[in-house]
Amino acid sequence: MDQKNLENGSYEVGVLPSVDDEHGGVTVEIKEPMDPNNFNMLLRCSLSHWKMLGKNAVWVKLPIKLANLVETTVKEGFVYHHAEPHYLMLVYWIPKTFSTIPANATHRVRIGAIIMNDKREVIDAVVIVSTSVFSTLLLVVLEKHGSLKGTGIWKIPTGILEEGEDIFSGAIREVKEETGIDTEFIDVLAFRQRHKSFFKKSDLLFLCMLRPLSFDIVKQDSEIEAAQWMPISEYAAQHFAKEHSVFKYAADICIAKVDNGYTGFTPMPISSYFDEHISYLYATRRI
Amino acid sequence: MDQKNLENGSYEVGVLPSVDDEHGGVTVEIKEPMDPNNFNMLLRCSLSHWKMLGKNAVWVKLPIKLANLVETTVKEGFVYHHAEPHYLMLVYWIPKTFSTIPANATHRVRIGAIIMNDKREVIDAVVIVSTSVFSTLLLVVLEKHGSLKGTGIWKIPTGILEEGEDIFSGAIREVKEETGIDTEFIDVLAFRQRHKSFFKKSDLLFLCMLRPLSFDIVKQDSEIEAAQWMPISEYAAQHFAKEHSVFKYAADICIAKVDNGYTGFTPMPISSYFDEHISYLYATRRI
Repeated sequence: MDQKNLENGSYEVGVLPSVDDEHGGVTVEIKEPMDPNNFNMLLRCSLSHWKMLGKNAVWVKLPIKLANLVETTVKEGFVYHHAEPHYLMLVYWIPKTFSTIPANATHRVRIGAIIMNDKREVIDAVVIVSTSVFSTLLLVVLEKHGSLKGTGIWKIPTGILEEGEDIFSGAIREVKEETGIDTEFIDVLAFRQRHKSFFKKSDLLFLCMLRPLSFDIVKQDSEIEAAQWMPISEYAAQHFAKEHSVFKYAADICIAKVDNGYTGFTPMPISSYFDEHISYLYATRRI
Repeated sequence: MDQKNLENGSYEVGVLPSVDDEHGGVTVEIKEPMDPNNFNMLLRCSLSHWKMLGKNAVWVKLPIKLANLVETTVKEGFVYHHAEPHYLMLVYWIPKTFSTIPANATHRVRIGAIIMNDKREVIDAVVIVSTSVFSTLLLVVLEKHGSLKGTGIWKIPTGILEEGEDIFSGAIREVKEETGIDTEFIDVLAFRQRHKSFFKKSDLLFLCMLRPLSFDIVKQDSEIEAAQWMPISEYAAQHFAKEHSVFKYAADICIAKVDNGYTGFTPMPISSYFDEHISYLYATRRI
């Protein structure tokens, strides 16, 4: 019961339950259905209350099943902050001063996995003539979807990081899912930043070197048309036509790796000032 | 006029104007106010129409001023895809098969700028005794906001990339804004990936080396309490207490840069297969 009639005819209105954050704001998460008019009154009173308390940001999280409360929230002056498939987060900045509302996420993170097999375990019948880069095999796939669909162009396995996933874990997971190959992570060899990849968002593609721990390919049916170990020379030949594409550079990096021991950034666990979560710093081993 | 009464008592309903995309989907952007019931009928008819045409994803973009159409859109089976302060994007996947709807952005990208001044231009009175790392100065700031606010800890300038901004441009911009120093970009020395940085989103902090082109500090009032050129030894001493923090590693990297010429990833322009936009690949110069 959020509203109580008093004897003198006026009434008391409750305040929406909220959780304080460490930056001076409050978060309200509405979980159960509520009448929009009732919600409107409660929200208005709550805003006055939080203003008096000197709060700055007010966050309202609405699950998609309560889409009927979006209009009311917007009418009280809230703007959208971010949305995921099943909720919408709105925010209201109370002070007249500089807003410290965190910016929305702007990038999607993808990995491209470079996995070389210089032992040629998979083609037993072939006599190893030399150990040059041209006898080294690269794990490649033909995709069922995506921009290279139907072109017949073989590419290194790529994939998108899941929420909260580390680059090194995502690379290992994607390779396992797409090709069945077990790997261990070595380093990030390069990365590409690209804009307007989807809507106005950008993406970062990390080219990662992984060492294969198994060699028998079991391809994923839903996303992959075919997968194979392909001589690097053959892979490179496909991509030479487009001089400056990232896949052409992937071939260059393979060659540099084999020829001169090109190294990239290796992950190391670090801590942060204000929490005990471990995060990873990717840097060259020389520091 | 979207609805037309016909002589036999039935009526024709229009289809919402849409733009085809190259992945088999359509996008509808509602710009002008519309009665929710009328919109509902149009959306329903349009969905049938697009299903017949074999379309896959239907995108509906609603500006915040049309928040009254959100509920209707959701009731027709749409889910949220992403939101920015002034619009909400919803999506409906028609086929029964594997969805190729692009994942939402998961990362915010920040830069940390390492700017060393081994010429000591700013302190003319000081006699240069040696050119070791301990006589090199580092550009540091005291922040008014953020996690180090009020701690008295000096840090390297940091900032968040704007929509569509390149890492190297963002680094140059942030340093100019916060300290007034002009710089040129050298390389990315390391990066850190951290999760749950805000809500369930992650962030990537790129530690960038820039070369100063000017030396007189003009600090930004809104975000910066103070800025100075500080001996690296003094900077490092502050951060030694927290052995594994990213700012401690920033000091290690400065020392490695001065002592052994530590290099990171330099940006080079590349193209992509399917568009003519230039993007940047960050890799070591050796490829």
